[in-house]
Amino acid sequence: MSKHALTVTRAENFPDWYQAVVRDADMAEASPVRGCMVIKPWGYGVWELLQRQLDDRIKAFGFENCYFPLFIPMSFIAKEAEHVEGFAKEMAVVTHHRLKNVGGKLELDPEARLEEPLIVRPTSETIIGDSFSRWIQSYRDLPLCINQWANVVRWEMRTRLFLRTAEFLWQEGHSAHADEGEARESTMRALELYREFAETVLSIPTIVGEKPENERFPGADSTYSIEAMMQDGKALQAGTSHYLGTHFAEAQNIKYQNREGRESFCHTTSWGLSTRMIGGIIMTHGDDDGLRCPPAVAPRQIVIVPMLRDRPEDAEVLAFCNKLQAELSARSSFGMPVRAYVDKRLTKSADKRWGWVRRGAPVICEVGSRDAAGGIVTFMRRDRLRDGDKVASKALPFNEFVAGAPSLLMDIQSSLLKEAKARLRAGIRSDIDTFEALETYFGGAEEDEDKHGEVKGWVRCSWSRPTGAALERVVDRLKALKLTIRNAPMDQPTRFRACVFTGAPGVEEILVARAY
Amino acid sequence: MSKHALTVTRAENFPDWYQAVVRDADMAEASPVRGCMVIKPWGYGVWELLQRQLDDRIKAFGFENCYFPLFIPMSFIAKEAEHVEGFAKEMAVVTHHRLKNVGGKLELDPEARLEEPLIVRPTSETIIGDSFSRWIQSYRDLPLCINQWANVVRWEMRTRLFLRTAEFLWQEGHSAHADEGEARESTMRALELYREFAETVLSIPTIVGEKPENERFPGADSTYSIEAMMQDGKALQAGTSHYLGTHFAEAQNIKYQNREGRESFCHTTSWGLSTRMIGGIIMTHGDDDGLRCPPAVAPRQIVIVPMLRDRPEDAEVLAFCNKLQAELSARSSFGMPVRAYVDKRLTKSADKRWGWVRRGAPVICEVGSRDAAGGIVTFMRRDRLRDGDKVASKALPFNEFVAGAPSLLMDIQSSLLKEAKARLRAGIRSDIDTFEALETYFGGAEEDEDKHGEVKGWVRCSWSRPTGAALERVVDRLKALKLTIRNAPMDQPTRFRACVFTGAPGVEEILVARAY
Repeated sequence: MSKHALTVTRAENFPDWYQAVVRDADMAEASPVRGCMVIKPWGYGVWELLQRQLDDRIKAFGFENCYFPLFIPMSFIAKEAEHVEGFAKEMAVVTHHRLKNVGGKLELDPEARLEEPLIVRPTSETIIGDSFSRWIQSYRDLPLCINQWANVVRWEMRTRLFLRTAEFLWQEGHSAHADEGEARESTMRALELYREFAETVLSIPTIVGEKPENERFPGADSTYSIEAMMQDGKALQAGTSHYLGTHFAEAQNIKYQNREGRESFCHTTSWGLSTRMIGGIIMTHGDDDGLRCPPAVAPRQIVIVPMLRDRPEDAEVLAFCNKLQAELSARSSFGMPVRAYVDKRLTKSADKRWGWVRRGAPVICEVGSRDAAGGIVTFMRRDRLRDGDKVASKALPFNEFVAGAPSLLMDIQSSLLKEAKARLRAGIRSDIDTFEALETYFGGAEEDEDKHGEVKGWVRCSWSRPTGAALERVVDRLKALKLTIRNAPMDQPTRFRACVFTGAPGVEEILVARAY
Repeated sequence: MSKHALTVTRAENFPDWYQAVVRDADMAEASPVRGCMVIKPWGYGVWELLQRQLDDRIKAFGFENCYFPLFIPMSFIAKEAEHVEGFAKEMAVVTHHRLKNVGGKLELDPEARLEEPLIVRPTSETIIGDSFSRWIQSYRDLPLCINQWANVVRWEMRTRLFLRTAEFLWQEGHSAHADEGEARESTMRALELYREFAETVLSIPTIVGEKPENERFPGADSTYSIEAMMQDGKALQAGTSHYLGTHFAEAQNIKYQNREGRESFCHTTSWGLSTRMIGGIIMTHGDDDGLRCPPAVAPRQIVIVPMLRDRPEDAEVLAFCNKLQAELSARSSFGMPVRAYVDKRLTKSADKRWGWVRRGAPVICEVGSRDAAGGIVTFMRRDRLRDGDKVASKALPFNEFVAGAPSLLMDIQSSLLKEAKARLRAGIRSDIDTFEALETYFGGAEEDEDKHGEVKGWVRCSWSRPTGAALERVVDRLKALKLTIRNAPMDQPTRFRACVFTGAPGVEEILVARAY
């Protein structure tokens, strides 16, 4: 065994470390289709648990699940001008509906060319808006609140598993309201839903705020995000919520009659969270031994590894493991039965142990014949794996371990959050007031910041909230430093420092950071 | 109120009745994208419950969920010759990855033409096989059992909501095994899983059997199906399970080393069940008042309709409804909390009642001020809605109703199954021994069998199991009567009658029927 379970550490090379975790924790792999990934059982298991717990919240929020077509007619995309600009550049386009076999070789059948090309949905505002325009007639039909779990496709030139893939999985909430006030309130509630979900279920603390004008969703009046800090100091946009004004309603004729019989356009919203979040879990909680999976989304929370020796005592060891598994499964944690699992594979128990360490199973129990005979459970907490160079394990009597398992899992969940919160707090500098200081801190674009040097976090500074061309200049200056404005946090002070870009009076605080 | 809640009855016009249920029960609607449907909240709610209960069974069967790319390179499809023939004719083909804005009009960007066209998956054997070839090296990696929940696309010329749509949702199980015996056993276990699931969760009895050669999945050695009888006597293939032999393994190089170090091809299987099943629920359980939803998949099992009169007593009525909802939700049924719902919309209570009748909510309670004051619950069972021309309702004291609710739901579930079983039993004729008798029974192809006349069920008869050209002739003769061979049921007698097609000695019994 090397010093760590992975061949590369975070400090050595963060991007390579990320890839090593994705691979060694059996999360996902690249597919033969450019930019598309194969999500493997452990990665998909995390997604399923994330999905179920987010879905419960979405339903409690009053949204109902539907399913809309994968394909969007090209003309629909063209209806909303900014939307076109934002998405036309990166879409998969279906042009034919048949192949033909020409002498054993498959070719496009020219007779099966579609009259109107179909776009594989990059997002569904336009196709859902079409249904909304039929479903909504009167104020009585409002608010209309629906959600969809779906795959979407955005052609990407440079891809990275989970973080940026051509196809990804997500949920998209869509609502239509009678007026701006109600639509804005719904937008903000969706955002808060994401913040609470990320914190409670994924142990990921985030900063909630509004995106600057240049980072808005194409066609939105306002875009809000939750931003999470990864261990390399970069930001990950982990969920967005948009107030779309009446842009899509006008493009798609989503109207309602009010009590007095007057017709108005609806105000719509949309919000989404995707498999990208799994990348966020890895880069928030992973360590040099692999993933540390938050118990609430760990497909297997307590993994029991029998140490088998091909001797008669094995039967006793296995019986003990099965009993442990059964008793743990009868307990519940996070509102579901504890997910306990006995790894009976015929491989070396040390290999099994390290496999589960890399996957980040929250608790790993190793059961030898002495444990079985003595009724003792020896276990490791994945979040506190090492004590110096040694692996730290504890031993408890069977009943005590079983009774304490739910609270042990809760404790791991909250420890991970506490650790991430401390890092987020420590990683935001608020003492940078000039662009020169920003330049000095981030050290220019030349340096390959991925590979060496100390972790650079975020900078919280004031600005004068420029728009249009002035904003473009700010964006370009930041770009030269590989920086972006993440958001303007919701909790703003009452007084501001001078604008970090111009020295003019500040009107808002923003977060500046490198980002995924 | 007309005599029935729908404008058309099953006897008048079964296809129109089906469309009326899909529409009036808020299940789904056609979309602006040819052949694609929009699944509405009530329809999607049924799918979610079906999905969860099927998924539990799939996991218990030892299959793990994964996710594979939506797109399949054209060359992958081309690898398995029969697969090409079976699917190349009806696939959506992506040829470009960008549009360009030419003077405000969107066009394909010729520079963004893909080198190799991508197929939107019609099924995933080829792309999953590619992963299998990498994941499997040794006998220790076997069996490999994975499942995927996904959307698939098969271009269809004539579509019908749920039953035949270009895009549909499904699960596809895929496994690889060391030898034929184990792979065949797994194929049959998947089939039995479907049968048990359809019967227990959907109250749909089915006949389990093997498809004839001409109906095999393209590339399969054996294809098995569960076949359900719709109320018009037609068959619906409700799930299929395939033993694929080594065809896909050879095409995709899925090999393993055995204990002795010798390499062999794996034997693979696949099996799928789709949103088509929702069409099966409608046509099995629907009546002239709409859907009757089996409680195990009803998004709302007990709907409480307060009869509000805009008077002070309304508060008491609402309080009673809320209490009823809360107490019912605390009980459990089918392993989940009872799904009770108070419909507080400001519409006439009669409209609400009939809306829930059409959607098929299993139990509908109407609460007036007298019920609230007297602590009485007046309710209708959707499966026994009418007593002659009247709507049948019962009244029970609050506590008695609440305590009995779980068993009431179970009783509705089993009553629906019992009814469907009796219909299936009565609908299969076993007394037809010649092709002439078959012709007489089904009355020729001229008649528009959809619209008039008595329900024609299935015929169970013997045949000599011809193959190749002889089978083709049989298929053509049946086709002229709009008939197909559904399957050869698993429970075969030991002696057979003469072949219904040729008079030669019979070797197998088959089911012949019209089908969806």
